[in-house]
Amino acid sequence: MRILGIDPGYATIGYGIIDKTPRGLKTIDYGVIETPKNESIPVRLAILNDAMSDIIRKCKPDAISVEELFFNTNITTGIKVAQARGVILLCAIKECGHLYEYTPLQIKQALTGNGRADKKQMQYMVKAFLGLSEEPKPDDAADALAAAICHAHTAQYNQRVLN
Amino acid sequence: MRILGIDPGYATIGYGIIDKTPRGLKTIDYGVIETPKNESIPVRLAILNDAMSDIIRKCKPDAISVEELFFNTNITTGIKVAQARGVILLCAIKECGHLYEYTPLQIKQALTGNGRADKKQMQYMVKAFLGLSEEPKPDDAADALAAAICHAHTAQYNQRVLN
Repeated sequence: MRILGIDPGYATIGYGIIDKTPRGLKTIDYGVIETPKNESIPVRLAILNDAMSDIIRKCKPDAISVEELFFNTNITTGIKVAQARGVILLCAIKECGHLYEYTPLQIKQALTGNGRADKKQMQYMVKAFLGLSEEPKPDDAADALAAAICHAHTAQYNQRVLN
Repeated sequence: MRILGIDPGYATIGYGIIDKTPRGLKTIDYGVIETPKNESIPVRLAILNDAMSDIIRKCKPDAISVEELFFNTNITTGIKVAQARGVILLCAIKECGHLYEYTPLQIKQALTGNGRADKKQMQYMVKAFLGLSEEPKPDDAADALAAAICHAHTAQYNQRVLN
Protein backbone atom coordinates (compact mmCIF):
# COMPACT_ATOMS: atom_id res chain seq x y z
CA MET A 1 0.00 0.00 0.00
CA ARG A 2 1.39 3.39 -1.04
CA ILE A 3 0.67 6.29 1.32
CA LEU A 4 1.17 10.00 0.66
CA GLY A 5 1.45 12.11 3.80
CA ILE A 6 0.92 15.87 3.59
CA ASP A 7 1.81 18.65 6.03
CA PRO A 8 -0.45 21.58 5.06
CA GLY A 9 0.76 25.17 4.67
CA TYR A 10 0.63 28.03 2.17
CA ALA A 11 4.33 28.98 1.95
CA THR A 12 5.91 25.53 2.47
CA ILE A 13 3.92 22.32 2.09
CA GLY A 14 5.57 19.05 3.08
CA TYR A 15 4.96 15.74 1.34
CA GLY A 16 6.22 12.25 2.06
CA ILE A 17 5.57 9.04 0.13
CA ILE A 18 6.03 5.60 1.70
CA ASP A 19 5.17 2.03 0.76
CA LYS A 20 3.84 -0.30 3.42
CA THR A 21 5.19 -3.77 2.60
CA PRO A 22 5.12 -7.08 4.47
CA ARG A 23 8.75 -6.35 5.40
CA GLY A 24 8.00 -2.90 6.82
CA LEU A 25 7.86 0.67 5.59
CA LYS A 26 9.86 1.86 2.59
CA THR A 27 10.56 5.51 1.77
CA ILE A 28 9.74 6.40 -1.84
CA ASP A 29 10.21 10.17 -1.83
CA TYR A 30 9.79 13.26 0.28
CA GLY A 31 10.22 17.01 -0.03
CA VAL A 32 8.38 20.32 -0.01
CA ILE A 33 6.33 22.46 -2.37
CA GLU A 34 7.21 26.13 -1.96
CA THR A 35 5.00 28.98 -3.21
CA PRO A 36 6.66 32.29 -4.14
CA LYS A 37 6.39 34.99 -1.46
CA ASN A 38 6.07 37.79 -4.01
CA GLU A 39 2.87 36.36 -5.52
CA SER A 40 -0.69 36.95 -4.31
CA ILE A 41 -2.43 34.28 -2.22
CA PRO A 42 -4.75 33.17 -5.08
CA VAL A 43 -1.75 32.72 -7.42
CA ARG A 44 0.11 30.79 -4.69
CA LEU A 45 -2.97 28.56 -4.25
CA ALA A 46 -2.99 27.86 -8.00
CA ILE A 47 0.74 26.97 -7.91
CA LEU A 48 0.10 24.69 -4.91
CA ASN A 49 -2.87 23.07 -6.72
CA ASP A 50 -0.79 22.30 -9.82
CA ALA A 51 2.24 20.99 -7.90
CA MET A 52 0.15 18.86 -5.52
CA SER A 53 -1.98 17.39 -8.34
CA ASP A 54 1.24 16.54 -10.18
CA ILE A 55 2.74 14.73 -7.16
CA ILE A 56 -0.47 12.71 -6.60
CA ARG A 57 -0.71 11.73 -10.29
CA LYS A 58 2.94 10.66 -10.38
CA CYS A 59 3.08 8.69 -7.10
CA LYS A 60 -0.43 7.15 -7.45
CA PRO A 61 -1.08 6.68 -3.72
CA ASP A 62 -3.61 4.18 -2.37
CA ALA A 63 -4.28 6.56 0.52
CA ILE A 64 -3.53 10.18 1.39
CA SER A 65 -2.98 11.18 5.01
CA VAL A 66 -3.34 14.89 5.84
CA GLU A 67 -2.58 16.50 9.18
CA GLU A 68 -5.52 18.38 10.69
CA LEU A 69 -5.05 22.03 11.53
CA PHE A 70 -4.02 22.98 14.98
CA PHE A 71 -5.12 26.55 15.30
CA ASN A 72 -2.56 28.70 17.00
CA THR A 73 -2.99 32.26 18.20
CA ASN A 74 -2.13 33.88 14.86
CA ILE A 75 -5.50 34.09 13.11
CA THR A 76 -4.17 35.77 9.94
CA THR A 77 -1.70 32.93 9.35
CA GLY A 78 -4.38 30.41 10.37
CA ILE A 79 -6.79 31.64 7.69
CA LYS A 80 -4.06 31.43 5.03
CA VAL A 81 -3.10 27.89 6.07
CA ALA A 82 -6.78 26.81 6.16
CA GLN A 83 -7.34 28.24 2.66
CA ALA A 84 -4.33 26.27 1.39
CA ARG A 85 -5.56 23.17 3.22
CA GLY A 86 -8.88 23.49 1.34
CA VAL A 87 -6.98 23.35 -1.95
CA ILE A 88 -4.96 20.33 -0.71
CA LEU A 89 -8.14 18.44 0.30
CA LEU A 90 -9.63 19.27 -3.12
CA CYS A 91 -6.56 17.87 -4.95
CA ALA A 92 -6.56 14.77 -2.74
CA ILE A 93 -10.24 13.95 -3.26
CA LYS A 94 -10.13 14.66 -7.00
CA GLU A 95 -6.89 12.82 -7.80
CA CYS A 96 -7.04 9.92 -5.32
CA GLY A 97 -10.29 9.75 -3.34
CA HIS A 98 -8.91 7.82 -0.36
CA LEU A 99 -8.32 10.60 2.09
CA TYR A 100 -7.68 10.34 5.84
CA GLU A 101 -7.19 13.10 8.38
CA TYR A 102 -5.29 12.85 11.66
CA THR A 103 -4.82 15.38 14.43
CA PRO A 104 -1.27 16.29 15.51
CA LEU A 105 -2.02 14.40 18.75
CA GLN A 106 -2.99 11.23 16.88
CA ILE A 107 0.16 11.40 14.75
CA LYS A 108 2.42 11.87 17.79
CA GLN A 109 0.61 9.07 19.60
CA ALA A 110 1.01 6.70 16.63
CA LEU A 111 4.74 7.38 16.26
CA THR A 112 5.90 7.66 19.86
CA GLY A 113 3.08 6.40 22.08
CA ASN A 114 2.95 9.91 23.53
CA GLY A 115 0.52 12.56 22.21
CA ARG A 116 2.76 15.28 23.64
CA ALA A 117 6.04 14.15 22.07
CA ASP A 118 8.36 16.99 21.00
CA LYS A 119 9.69 17.68 17.50
CA LYS A 120 13.08 16.07 18.18
CA GLN A 121 11.51 12.83 19.38
CA MET A 122 9.18 12.78 16.36
CA GLN A 123 12.07 13.28 13.92
CA TYR A 124 14.01 10.49 15.63
CA MET A 125 11.04 8.10 15.27
CA VAL A 126 10.45 9.01 11.59
CA LYS A 127 14.10 8.17 10.92
CA ALA A 128 13.81 4.92 12.94
CA PHE A 129 10.57 3.69 11.32
CA LEU A 130 11.84 4.37 7.81
CA GLY A 131 15.37 3.07 8.47
CA LEU A 132 16.92 6.30 7.18
CA SER A 133 20.55 7.13 7.82
CA GLU A 134 19.65 10.74 8.66
CA GLU A 135 16.61 12.61 9.90
CA PRO A 136 14.65 13.82 6.86
CA LYS A 137 14.83 17.57 6.17
CA PRO A 138 13.20 20.06 6.09
CA ASP A 139 10.83 19.74 9.08
CA ASP A 140 7.74 20.03 6.84
CA ALA A 141 8.81 16.92 4.89
CA ALA A 142 9.48 15.05 8.16
CA ASP A 143 6.00 16.03 9.42
CA ALA A 144 4.46 14.76 6.16
CA LEU A 145 6.31 11.43 6.50
CA ALA A 146 5.02 11.22 10.10
CA ALA A 147 1.42 11.65 8.82
CA ALA A 148 2.02 8.85 6.30
CA ILE A 149 3.51 6.53 8.98
CA CYS A 150 0.56 7.30 11.29
CA HIS A 151 -1.85 6.12 8.59
CA ALA A 152 0.25 2.99 7.93
CA HIS A 153 0.01 2.06 11.63
CA THR A 154 -3.66 2.96 11.94
CA ALA A 155 -4.58 1.12 8.73
CA GLN A 156 -2.62 -1.90 9.98
CA TYR A 157 -4.56 -1.83 13.22
CA ASN A 158 -7.89 -1.48 11.38
CA GLN A 159 -6.97 -4.41 9.16
CA ARG A 160 -6.15 -6.59 12.18
CA VAL A 161 -9.44 -5.73 13.82
CA LEU A 162 -11.51 -6.26 10.69
CA ASN A 163 -9.93 -9.52 9.47
CA MET B 1 -18.04 45.30 -17.26
CA ARG B 2 -19.46 42.07 -15.82
CA ILE B 3 -18.76 41.47 -12.13
CA LEU B 4 -19.26 38.26 -10.16
CA GLY B 5 -19.56 38.76 -6.40
CA ILE B 6 -19.03 35.82 -4.05
CA ASP B 7 -19.94 35.37 -0.38
CA PRO B 8 -17.68 32.52 0.84
CA GLY B 9 -18.91 29.58 2.93
CA TYR B 10 -18.77 25.78 2.94
CA ALA B 11 -22.48 24.91 3.39
CA THR B 12 -24.05 27.84 1.50
CA ILE B 13 -22.04 29.98 -0.92
CA GLY B 14 -23.69 33.11 -2.35
CA TYR B 15 -23.05 34.42 -5.86
CA GLY B 16 -24.33 37.50 -7.63
CA ILE B 17 -23.65 38.62 -11.20
CA ILE B 18 -24.11 42.23 -12.32
CA ASP B 19 -23.24 44.28 -15.39
CA LYS B 20 -21.90 47.77 -14.93
CA THR B 21 -23.23 49.83 -17.85
CA PRO B 22 -23.17 53.58 -18.66
CA ARG B 23 -26.79 53.64 -17.48
CA GLY B 24 -26.08 52.00 -14.14
CA LEU B 25 -25.95 48.51 -12.70
CA LYS B 26 -27.94 45.62 -14.15
CA THR B 27 -28.64 42.34 -12.35
CA ILE B 28 -27.83 39.28 -14.46
CA ASP B 29 -28.30 36.47 -11.95
CA TYR B 30 -27.89 35.56 -8.31
CA GLY B 31 -28.33 32.56 -6.05
CA VAL B 32 -26.49 30.10 -3.85
CA ILE B 33 -24.44 26.93 -4.16
CA GLU B 34 -25.32 24.46 -1.43
CA THR B 35 -23.13 21.50 -0.47
CA PRO B 36 -24.77 18.39 1.03
CA LYS B 37 -24.52 18.15 4.83
CA ASN B 38 -24.20 14.36 4.80
CA GLU B 39 -20.99 14.44 2.72
CA SER B 40 -17.44 14.81 4.04
CA ILE B 41 -15.71 18.19 3.85
CA PRO B 42 -13.35 17.13 0.99
CA VAL B 43 -16.34 15.92 -1.09
CA ARG B 44 -18.22 19.17 -0.33
CA LEU B 45 -15.13 21.13 -1.47
CA ALA B 46 -15.10 19.15 -4.74
CA ILE B 47 -18.83 19.88 -5.28
CA LEU B 48 -18.20 23.58 -4.56
CA ASN B 49 -15.23 23.59 -6.96
CA ASP B 50 -17.28 22.10 -9.82
CA ALA B 51 -20.32 24.35 -9.26
CA MET B 52 -18.24 27.53 -8.88
CA SER B 53 -16.08 26.77 -11.94
CA ASP B 54 -19.29 26.17 -13.91
CA ILE B 55 -20.79 29.53 -12.86
CA ILE B 56 -17.58 31.41 -13.77
CA ARG B 57 -17.31 29.69 -17.16
CA LYS B 58 -20.96 30.43 -17.99
CA CYS B 59 -21.12 34.07 -16.84
CA LYS B 60 -17.61 34.99 -18.11
CA PRO B 61 -16.99 37.83 -15.61
CA ASP B 62 -14.45 40.60 -16.25
CA ALA B 63 -13.81 40.75 -12.51
CA ILE B 64 -14.57 38.62 -9.46
CA SER B 65 -15.13 40.27 -6.09
CA VAL B 66 -14.79 38.05 -3.00
CA GLU B 67 -15.56 39.07 0.56
CA GLU B 68 -12.63 38.67 2.96
CA LEU B 69 -13.10 36.49 6.01
CA PHE B 70 -14.15 38.08 9.21
CA PHE B 71 -13.07 35.63 11.83
CA ASN B 72 -15.67 35.14 14.50
CA THR B 73 -15.25 33.27 17.77
CA ASN B 74 -16.12 29.82 16.36
CA ILE B 75 -12.73 28.53 15.20
CA THR B 76 -14.03 25.16 13.93
CA THR B 77 -16.49 26.89 11.60
CA GLY B 78 -13.81 29.46 10.71
CA ILE B 79 -11.38 26.76 9.53
CA LYS B 80 -14.10 25.15 7.37
CA VAL B 81 -15.06 28.49 5.80
CA ALA B 82 -11.38 29.36 5.18
CA GLN B 83 -10.81 25.96 3.51
CA ALA B 84 -13.80 26.60 1.23
CA ARG B 85 -12.56 30.13 0.54
CA GLY B 86 -9.24 28.63 -0.62
CA VAL B 87 -11.13 26.56 -3.19
CA ILE B 88 -13.16 29.63 -4.28
CA LEU B 89 -9.97 31.72 -4.75
CA LEU B 90 -8.46 28.84 -6.76
CA CYS B 91 -11.53 28.67 -9.06
CA ALA B 92 -11.52 32.45 -9.46
CA ILE B 93 -7.84 32.72 -10.39
CA LYS B 94 -7.95 29.71 -12.73
CA GLU B 95 -11.18 30.55 -14.56
CA CYS B 96 -11.03 34.37 -14.62
CA GLY B 97 -7.79 35.81 -13.23
CA HIS B 98 -9.18 39.23 -12.30
CA LEU B 99 -9.78 38.78 -8.63
CA TYR B 100 -10.45 41.46 -6.01
CA GLU B 101 -10.96 41.09 -2.27
CA TYR B 102 -12.88 43.44 -0.01
CA THR B 103 -13.35 43.39 3.75
CA PRO B 104 -16.93 43.43 5.16
CA LEU B 105 -16.18 46.99 6.32
CA GLN B 106 -15.19 48.12 2.80
CA ILE B 107 -18.34 46.58 1.32
CA LYS B 108 -20.59 48.23 3.90
CA GLN B 109 -18.79 51.53 3.40
CA ALA B 110 -19.17 51.34 -0.40
CA LEU B 111 -22.91 50.60 -0.26
CA THR B 112 -24.08 52.77 2.62
CA GLY B 113 -21.26 55.18 3.46
CA ASN B 114 -21.15 53.52 6.88
CA GLY B 115 -18.71 50.68 7.66
CA ARG B 116 -20.93 49.56 10.53
CA ALA B 117 -24.23 49.36 8.60
CA ASP B 118 -26.56 46.53 9.67
CA LYS B 119 -27.85 43.68 7.50
CA LYS B 120 -31.24 45.32 6.92
CA GLN B 121 -29.68 48.55 5.68
CA MET B 122 -27.36 46.58 3.40
CA GLN B 123 -30.22 44.59 1.88
CA TYR B 124 -32.17 47.80 1.29
CA MET B 125 -29.20 49.35 -0.54
CA VAL B 126 -28.58 46.24 -2.69
CA LYS B 127 -32.24 46.41 -3.78
CA ALA B 128 -31.96 50.18 -4.42
CA PHE B 129 -28.71 50.04 -6.43
CA LEU B 130 -29.97 47.21 -8.62
CA GLY B 131 -33.50 48.62 -9.00
CA LEU B 132 -35.03 45.34 -7.83
CA SER B 133 -38.68 45.13 -6.80
CA GLU B 134 -37.78 43.00 -3.77
CA GLU B 135 -34.75 42.44 -1.59
CA PRO B 136 -32.76 39.50 -3.04
CA LYS B 137 -32.97 36.25 -1.05
CA PRO B 138 -31.35 34.33 0.54
CA ASP B 139 -28.99 36.52 2.56
CA ASP B 140 -25.88 34.85 1.09
CA ALA B 141 -26.94 35.89 -2.43
CA ALA B 142 -27.63 39.45 -1.23
CA ASP B 143 -24.16 39.55 0.38
CA ALA B 144 -22.61 38.34 -2.88
CA LEU B 145 -24.44 41.07 -4.86
CA ALA B 146 -23.16 43.60 -2.30
CA ALA B 147 -19.57 42.44 -2.95
CA ALA B 148 -20.15 42.87 -6.70
CA ILE B 149 -21.65 46.38 -6.25
CA CYS B 150 -18.71 47.33 -3.98
CA HIS B 151 -16.29 46.43 -6.78
CA ALA B 152 -18.37 48.34 -9.36
CA HIS B 153 -18.14 51.47 -7.20
CA THR B 154 -14.49 51.03 -6.33
CA ALA B 155 -13.54 50.30 -9.95
CA GLN B 156 -15.52 53.40 -11.01
CA TYR B 157 -13.61 55.44 -8.48
CA ASN B 158 -10.28 54.02 -9.63
CA GLN B 159 -11.18 54.82 -13.22
CA ARG B 160 -12.04 58.41 -12.32
CA VAL B 161 -8.77 58.83 -10.50
CA LEU B 162 -6.66 57.23 -13.24
CA ASN B 163 -8.26 58.96 -16.27
